[in-house]
This record gives sequence, C-alpha cells and structure tokens, in this order.
Amino acid sequence: MTGLGSSARKPAGVAGAVDEGRLWTRHMDMARHGALARGGVNRPALSAEDGRARRLMADWARALGCAVFTDPVGNLFVRREGTEAGLAPVLTGSHLDTQPTGGKFDGSYGVLAGLEAIEAMNDAGISTHRPVEVVAWTNEEGSRFQPGCLGSCVFAGRTGADEALAVRDRDGIAAHDALAAIRAGEPDFLVRPVGFDVHAYVEAHIEQGPLLEKARVPVGIVTGIQGTRWFAIEVLGEEAHAGTMPRRHRKDAFVAAVAMVGALDRLMHDEDDVVRFTIGRFEVSPGSPNTVPGRVFFTIDFRHPDAHTLKRLGDQVQAVCRAHAGPCQVGIEETFHALPCAFDPMVVDTVRATVRDLGFPAMELPSGANHDAKFLAEICPTAMIFVPCERGISHNEAESASPSDLAAGAQVLAETLVRLANA
Amino acid sequence: MTGLGSSARKPAGVAGAVDEGRLWTRHMDMARHGALARGGVNRPALSAEDGRARRLMADWARALGCAVFTDPVGNLFVRREGTEAGLAPVLTGSHLDTQPTGGKFDGSYGVLAGLEAIEAMNDAGISTHRPVEVVAWTNEEGSRFQPGCLGSCVFAGRTGADEALAVRDRDGIAAHDALAAIRAGEPDFLVRPVGFDVHAYVEAHIEQGPLLEKARVPVGIVTGIQGTRWFAIEVLGEEAHAGTMPRRHRKDAFVAAVAMVGALDRLMHDEDDVVRFTIGRFEVSPGSPNTVPGRVFFTIDFRHPDAHTLKRLGDQVQAVCRAHAGPCQVGIEETFHALPCAFDPMVVDTVRATVRDLGFPAMELPSGANHDAKFLAEICPTAMIFVPCERGISHNEAESASPSDLAAGAQVLAETLVRLANA
Repeated sequence: MTGLGSSARKPAGVAGAVDEGRLWTRHMDMARHGALARGGVNRPALSAEDGRARRLMADWARALGCAVFTDPVGNLFVRREGTEAGLAPVLTGSHLDTQPTGGKFDGSYGVLAGLEAIEAMNDAGISTHRPVEVVAWTNEEGSRFQPGCLGSCVFAGRTGADEALAVRDRDGIAAHDALAAIRAGEPDFLVRPVGFDVHAYVEAHIEQGPLLEKARVPVGIVTGIQGTRWFAIEVLGEEAHAGTMPRRHRKDAFVAAVAMVGALDRLMHDEDDVVRFTIGRFEVSPGSPNTVPGRVFFTIDFRHPDAHTLKRLGDQVQAVCRAHAGPCQVGIEETFHALPCAFDPMVVDTVRATVRDLGFPAMELPSGANHDAKFLAEICPTAMIFVPCERGISHNEAESASPSDLAAGAQVLAETLVRLANA
Repeated sequence: MTGLGSSARKPAGVAGAVDEGRLWTRHMDMARHGALARGGVNRPALSAEDGRARRLMADWARALGCAVFTDPVGNLFVRREGTEAGLAPVLTGSHLDTQPTGGKFDGSYGVLAGLEAIEAMNDAGISTHRPVEVVAWTNEEGSRFQPGCLGSCVFAGRTGADEALAVRDRDGIAAHDALAAIRAGEPDFLVRPVGFDVHAYVEAHIEQGPLLEKARVPVGIVTGIQGTRWFAIEVLGEEAHAGTMPRRHRKDAFVAAVAMVGALDRLMHDEDDVVRFTIGRFEVSPGSPNTVPGRVFFTIDFRHPDAHTLKRLGDQVQAVCRAHAGPCQVGIEETFHALPCAFDPMVVDTVRATVRDLGFPAMELPSGANHDAKFLAEICPTAMIFVPCERGISHNEAESASPSDLAAGAQVLAETLVRLANA
C-alpha cells in the first residue's frame, strides 16, 4: 500500500529517532515464527512458535539494556528504567499470538512499536522520570484458548490466574501446561506476581478497518472501544414438500427469518453509518432444494460506541423478531453484552497533542474491534493509537500495512510515552 | 385422520364391490417389507425388501387369476384379460419403492388400489373388452438410484434399458446387478420386452399436499403435473471484520442475497397462491458470527402448472438477482427445467364423470409433485386420481391416510378403469 505517513522533515526528539527500516525489519523477522506459505502467520498462543517469538522479543530487549519479566499467566514485560525510583511505569504493548491464518501486523505492531520507542529513546539519549514498559499479553486472539484477552483480563483482576489457565484447547491441552512448556525456554525471565500499578497504558495497533486509509491519514486517535451485543435466533417452522404445499399453508422458517432480517436491517439503518450490524451465521435446515425449511438459526453481531444507542437498538431486537415470525416460532437469546469503553481524556489528549505537534494528518475514531486496552482501561488511564492497514483487511494472510504508516504510529507512540513518563 | 370418503349408500357395479377393509389390510401387509420403528417404511428400489414386496404383489395377483409379467428394467405387470383379443390394455399402478424414511401410502396406494379394482371386478362379475393391467414401476423415488422414474422413463422410450440400469447406488452397486439379484426370486414371472401399446393410463396416489384435506373432499381429479424450474445462485462478496467495516464499504454477500430473495418473493407473489416458490438451500460462508459473509449459495425451486407463467416468471430470475446484487458478484445457473404436463381430456373427463356418478365431493387440481404418470402421458392418454393424506405430510414416516378415503379413490379408479376398458 502507499504509505500515508511519509514526511519530508525529520521531527525533533524521540520521534526523530524512530527508524522506519528497523521497525519494518523487526516485523519481517518476527513473522518468521509461524510463517505461512501465502505470507501470513499462524502463531497460536503458548505454542512453540509463540515461545520463539517471545524469546526473540526478550533478546531484542536485552540488547537495548532492558530487564525482562513474566508473570503467572505468561504476560511478557520489557522494562526501561526511569530516573525516579518508585514511580509506576507507563505501559505500552499488545500481543504476539495470531489467528490461525493471521497476518504480520495484528498484535505484533503494538509490541514492536513499543520496542522501537525504547530504542528511539536510547538513540536520542532521552531519559524519563517514570519507567517505560512494553508488554506482550498472553492469548489475546482467543483462537486457541477461549475467551481471548486472557493475559490482560487476569492482569486487570477480572479473573484469577489459575482459573484462566485451566482452559483447554481443542486437543485437550490446558493453558497452564502449554505455558509450562514455554517457560522451559525462558529460565532467564524474572517472575513477577500478577498485576501492578500502571501510570498509563497506550496500545498501538493496526486499525483492522478501512477508515484511516479511506481518509488518507496515517494515524488514528482512538477515543474508545465500541460496545458489542450478540444475539442467537432460532426460527422453527414446519418442513413441507416444495411442489405441493401452498404458500398460505406453509410455516416456512426461511421466509420468516428473512422477514426478521429485513426488519432488523431497517431498525439498524443509520445515515451516519456508525452502527455495525452483521448477520454472519445463518443456517437453514434441512437444506434440501425441494423441501420447505423447517428451521433457521442465525446470529446478530451488533456494535455501537454509544451506550445509550447500544441499549436502545439492542433492546428492540427481540420484539422485532417476534413481530415478523409469521406462522413460525422464534427463540431469541442474548449471548454476549459488552458496554462501550471510553478512553481516558488525559491519555487521549496527550496522543492528540503529540499528533498535532508532529504535524501528522489524523482522525479520531472508536475501535471497532476489541483489544487488551479494553481491560487495561478498567484499572488505569488508557488510550490507543491506530495506523491504517490495506483495505481494512485483517485476520487474514493478506493483512498489510505500509512501513511509513507503521513508523508514523511509532513516532506518535514514542513521543506520547515520553510525555506521559515525564508528566 | 377423519375419513372424508365415507358414504352411507353402497354404489352399484364395480365401485360397490371395492372392499375398504381388504384394501387397508393390504397396505398394512405391504408395509411390513421395510417397516421402520416409527411406523414408516424404508424400501429402496431393487432391494431385498423391494423384492419381497414384488413377490407379495405377484402372489396376490395370482390368487386373483392374473398373469404376472416383468420387463428388462424390472417393471412388474399384473394382467386381467379382456373379452376381445388384440386390444391394448388399460393400465393403472404406481410404485412400490419408498424414500429412506417414507410412509405406507406413497406409491403403494396406486398399486394396491389397482389390485383392489381387479378384485372388485372379479367379485362383481364384471368383464371388460380390453385387458386391465396393474403396474409397479421400478425406482420411482430416485433415492437409491438417480434419477427417479427409471421404470416409467424407459417404458416411455425416453432412455434405453441398459443405459438406465448402468447407474449405481452410493455403495457402488449397479441397478442391473440389484435387479438380477431380485430376479432370482421371480422365476415364475413372464418376461416381456420394454414397452407396449397402452389404451389409457390412470394412476391413483395420495396428494402429498394439503388441498383435498383443507377442502374436505375425498377425491382429487388431477388435471396435470405442474412444471418445475430449478436455479442455483452464487453470491460473492468480501469477508470483513464485523466490528470495523462500515456498512457503506462492505460487500456483504448475505445482505445482497437477502435483497435478491425479497425481490424474488415479490416477483413470485400471486394472489391465487398457485405459484410454488421455495428457497430450500441457503448456505452462508464462512459462517462466523463476527465476520461479514463473503459468499452465499442458494437454490430456487419454482413450479407452476401453466407453461406461459413458468416461462414468464422463471425467465426473470436472472435479471432480478443481478439487479439486487449491490456491490457483490452473482452467478445464476438453471439446473433443471421440466415443462408442465396437461393430462388427456378424455381420461380426465372419464374420471370426472365417474366421480360425479358416484356422488363424491371432489376438486380438480394439478399435481405439485412429479409422478410416473408424467412419462406415461408422453405415450398414451393419461390422468391421475388423488386422495387426501393427513396434513399433506409425505416422504415422512408420519405419512397417513384414512381407510375410507383410500376406498373412495379405489372406487373411482375401479369404475374409471371399467369405463375406459369398455369404451
């Protein structure tokens, strides 16, 4: 993709020390661990590939003079000391695990941009009052162990470490056993207890959506994470012969489900195109061309950054489905409900001021996807920085981002970390 | 179900000799071959169970003084001689094979009603100018060997016997080998060549739809078989993250397919409820709740008794789908096209007059399903007689019909056969 972050002038301070080529090369080196034939990465959480990725991260950090820590759920921390003893660190990072057919940038970017920020501080001779730490959270994707955000969830005190590590993958391997296997290759990591005071958390990530690219800006100032509600809907009709049963005597579950979908689509339609409304699973039984369907099962994924709208529209799903069931029965279950999260104004302001001072075109947007930052926001001032990814494609081997955009985001991150650590 | 065919008075002639109890008992006896636990029947074409059903049919026919014939594709013929030598027979019958979880009446009724008609002729001492024959066609259902109507199709000269019998079932057994195995138990059957002159063909069958029951009439005068067109539609969009991709940038294959379905539904809507329009298969990929669907495949089963309407509406399917594809690609393939068949006015008139003379309430209707009669209609004057089945349910173990309705249909059949054979 064409980079949007190119700049003729070199900024002053830490941002000026960010090295686009070095950052890009680290992405390519990291992507070797779990590399797939079509350019993507398969690096399941706590797998051997994940272990090698953590080892690489730790070795890079050591070379920068950082200490390396881990905690009981395997979160990996890299620490650059501050000048004042006893202050809580400024934390940045993301995750190193990937989707089964994931890309080179989802997660890795946040970790590697954090490492680049530390190296830029070193190169620019910048010291900070507070320590700066870079973290790689365990099992963010949730594709090997469910649910995702395991490491950040435990760090934020939502779940106990033992409980979180009791989950098993589809081969029956428990997360604590997978973690123990990785630990064997990390004898030099210092072990900390779960959780500590964090002054502020800033996570850099590819957008995983098309808005920055469409707007032709290299940096997104992320204001929060939108809320999500999931529904599962089962429509029960009656199977019948397609050639003999007249329409008025049918109980066609497909026809009823399509009527519901139409009404839901009207309910969720907004001129501003902020509502995210997706029907991703839609299963018709028995699935024979000449049999009137007796059952349909479908899911709704509904997201919105505003809690009031999330409640107002989501609370109408059940009534709309019932009103359009026709002669069929319908059952509606809400299977997931996460409120929107608004990031901390102080941290967002710091990112905003940094972007302005560095002269990057930028836009403000909520995150459409969930991130570890959602759980950190519960325990410390938090914000995120987005960079564009090509055509918004992510969770896909084709995931791509430009070196200059990645560097622009790393410049903003580095400067933001320094400001937060010196405030 | 409550019988609609009960009559206080006993009609004169052959109809009066039809024995409701005997006809019912033969259905129950025949249903033992391939009996299933929940009351249904699994009697695949040319299976051992089918062989035992044919043997039973032949033994019953012998007891009535009939000769038993078969032909190179295994069609089974039972012949009651006429009084004038050299005249083409009047033919009736249906099939003895069933769906894997079929019922006791689909097919069997037409064969057993034919046998009952012959026994009633015997009992009433009625002779006919022309011979009367009852046939059990091979492999009507098409569930073991595809396509169905194998025996009637070959009889009508559509396909050669060798070609038709070369098909294999899912275990790799060729139809000709399955037939040879059955033949071993039929050394007394006389073998005829394929096909002969037929004066007229009348097939009795359960309706397999709800119209007669809803109208509370025991007999349906079948005017033809509606035409059928099948379409397969593939919609290609682009997968995207449900949380991040705005509606206006999506290529959502599900949204496009639902728009097509809505437009097709409006196209196919008729006040008279004669159009049969069914979407029975509808598959959404990748089928993940938080991924915008990239592909939908769906089928259309469209039927109508009028050739002009079948053409007019069916020919619009492609344009309607293309007009509603939105940002997606769509491919439309017509996978099956069978023209409507209008039954012979002389035979339909004979059925109509018989129904009137016997005093049964009746209605005229096209057949929604296909039958062997469709192929016979290509080579001789043909019609069908329907009786109600409970709630229109067929191809189902729960298939049911009332003894009195079955008897009413057999009375109409017997009288119709005598009139045709004496005309």
